[in-house]
Amino acid sequence: MSSRIESSLASQLDRIDRARTVRQSKPLLRDQHITLSHGSGGKATHTLIDALFLPAFGDPLLDGFADSATINTNGAGSVRLAFTTDSYVVSPLFFPGGDIGMLAVNGTINDLAMSGAKPLFLSLAFILEEGLEIEVLRRVVDGVASAAKAAGVRVVTGDTKVVPRGKADQLFINTSGIGVHGDRSRMSVDSIKEGDSVLVSGHIGDHGMAVMLAREALELETDIRTDSAPLHTLVDCILDAAPSTRLLKDPTRGGVATTLNEIARRAGVSFTLDEDRIPVREEVRGACEILGLDPLHIANEGKLIAIIPREETEAALVAMRRHPLGGNGAVIGTINADPHAMVILRTPIGGSRVLDMLVGDPLPRIC
Amino acid sequence: MSSRIESSLASQLDRIDRARTVRQSKPLLRDQHITLSHGSGGKATHTLIDALFLPAFGDPLLDGFADSATINTNGAGSVRLAFTTDSYVVSPLFFPGGDIGMLAVNGTINDLAMSGAKPLFLSLAFILEEGLEIEVLRRVVDGVASAAKAAGVRVVTGDTKVVPRGKADQLFINTSGIGVHGDRSRMSVDSIKEGDSVLVSGHIGDHGMAVMLAREALELETDIRTDSAPLHTLVDCILDAAPSTRLLKDPTRGGVATTLNEIARRAGVSFTLDEDRIPVREEVRGACEILGLDPLHIANEGKLIAIIPREETEAALVAMRRHPLGGNGAVIGTINADPHAMVILRTPIGGSRVLDMLVGDPLPRIC
Repeated sequence: MSSRIESSLASQLDRIDRARTVRQSKPLLRDQHITLSHGSGGKATHTLIDALFLPAFGDPLLDGFADSATINTNGAGSVRLAFTTDSYVVSPLFFPGGDIGMLAVNGTINDLAMSGAKPLFLSLAFILEEGLEIEVLRRVVDGVASAAKAAGVRVVTGDTKVVPRGKADQLFINTSGIGVHGDRSRMSVDSIKEGDSVLVSGHIGDHGMAVMLAREALELETDIRTDSAPLHTLVDCILDAAPSTRLLKDPTRGGVATTLNEIARRAGVSFTLDEDRIPVREEVRGACEILGLDPLHIANEGKLIAIIPREETEAALVAMRRHPLGGNGAVIGTINADPHAMVILRTPIGGSRVLDMLVGDPLPRIC
Repeated sequence: MSSRIESSLASQLDRIDRARTVRQSKPLLRDQHITLSHGSGGKATHTLIDALFLPAFGDPLLDGFADSATINTNGAGSVRLAFTTDSYVVSPLFFPGGDIGMLAVNGTINDLAMSGAKPLFLSLAFILEEGLEIEVLRRVVDGVASAAKAAGVRVVTGDTKVVPRGKADQLFINTSGIGVHGDRSRMSVDSIKEGDSVLVSGHIGDHGMAVMLAREALELETDIRTDSAPLHTLVDCILDAAPSTRLLKDPTRGGVATTLNEIARRAGVSFTLDEDRIPVREEVRGACEILGLDPLHIANEGKLIAIIPREETEAALVAMRRHPLGGNGAVIGTINADPHAMVILRTPIGGSRVLDMLVGDPLPRIC
């Protein structure tokens, strides 16, 4: 890190250090009520997990960071499984390029795929609001079915509950998923080292912005569509080309900035990103400027972040770009050993800024 | 079946036959909107599953009857898993003897246990309403944690979403579960034969009535409590004593009557039950009478129905009664070969009536 940057960041670092000391000693949940921020995937969500969920369960498998648990069935015929769950409350149910059903299937597939597991089986649970049009449900079910078919996973168990009018908002979905781990080396946040590269598989911010524009019926003439897609075959290509891949994460709620901050904290390293290497569609950038949002905080549903050792970076990038879902993949930064766990963004004009997790929730119910 | 009964049931049988012919040829979903009945676990729920979900997925594993899917991971280290999902929307969140968290854990354990699988891992997903008191969430999380600990299952993955005030009702939970099948013979509805016995593991209707009374704040002086309990160790005892057990089912939404009607239809057999052998607490019976409900339609969360071959019935009953959760177990009827798939209840005074599935939903949001 140059001394200029160090100087400009000094006070921020101090503040963050103090806050972190408090947080690490004992996670504090100061709120007395749930706010939308607790569902944003950002800081408040992490506080809730650290202060309330982890102490209650204290299971080493529930580490609060992985999107899926890796579990062993033991006994004869032991197998290493990935297991994940996600609820979907996106509003509206239908948006450019997709719907809540497709989103639920792809999101759960991606949580499994990020651990290197092969996604196999999904569960599908609906909470329906009394009065929902059957035709709406039918379209959502079709979205689930076609996404599952396209990705080669099977919906094998389900549940339906109905609550009175006004006690839900049309419909909510939960999909849980089971995948199977093969012989691949195990990725882990602890394997991340100084000098590793940070890759993103394509344009960021599409999903969040597509939903935002659909919901607010903003009069922006764009054709921004969700990027919702199943990433397991892209993961296969990357891991074949770069078998020492350290970590894969899909930057959903809270966006790339939140995901990288999580990784930085868990790994005890820092990131240096080059802003002009981060792929953002002009339309998304423009919409973000109008709305006062940072594309790096906007949710993605068909992108992944890959941390790759330097020597396999080129191979990973080539493999990524050859895949239909990684054509706009890019190396956006590197890992450095600064223990402050910072994500520093170098701007095209030579400045830099600290990129923090999402605070608050500018885009509630994005997935 | 005696000729007297045949005569008195003739017109009902005709009507049911006609309805069933229509349903079997092509399930019809006449409703244009979701009603509370679609979540009751009764007739409307089955129509929704048959007409909308099964055609969309057409997966042989998703048979619309089993509470969990049995799946094979294949490849090296293949293992036979049970996989299940359930959402919980019970209102109120706390009721005599339990809470939504305990209910979610035990309910998912029981869905796995009914297939003969050993429950191992749970996922836990919350949908929270903005403004929910953190203290309420903490109590529910404690309910989840202590139920999981008591049952020896591990909560290994989770998710939290928040929706704006008025878009949910405090909180909803989804728990999905994974269990592992051992070497036991596979139970199946197709194995049910004429002469088999029907057992229930204890008093029925406790859970539904406890929630109902807590919700409506009725001025009935009772100490009816939920029967919510994890049934996997009871299942172990029964299967050890009666290894040819045909089928186990937990009569939750829709109660014993709905569960037996489902079994009758799937197996193509009929049931004859003796009303005075069905264990119902006096207080539950009294409350049902006041409210105009049938205990056989009330949800249970800690009871099971077992279909056992005649020669193993006594052993199963003894084993059941020795277990703390089966002390009031009883043989309540037998299977006969009548292909009308009827459930006939013989009353103490020598009459009989057809016991149908739950129609409508007198007790919405019971689980």
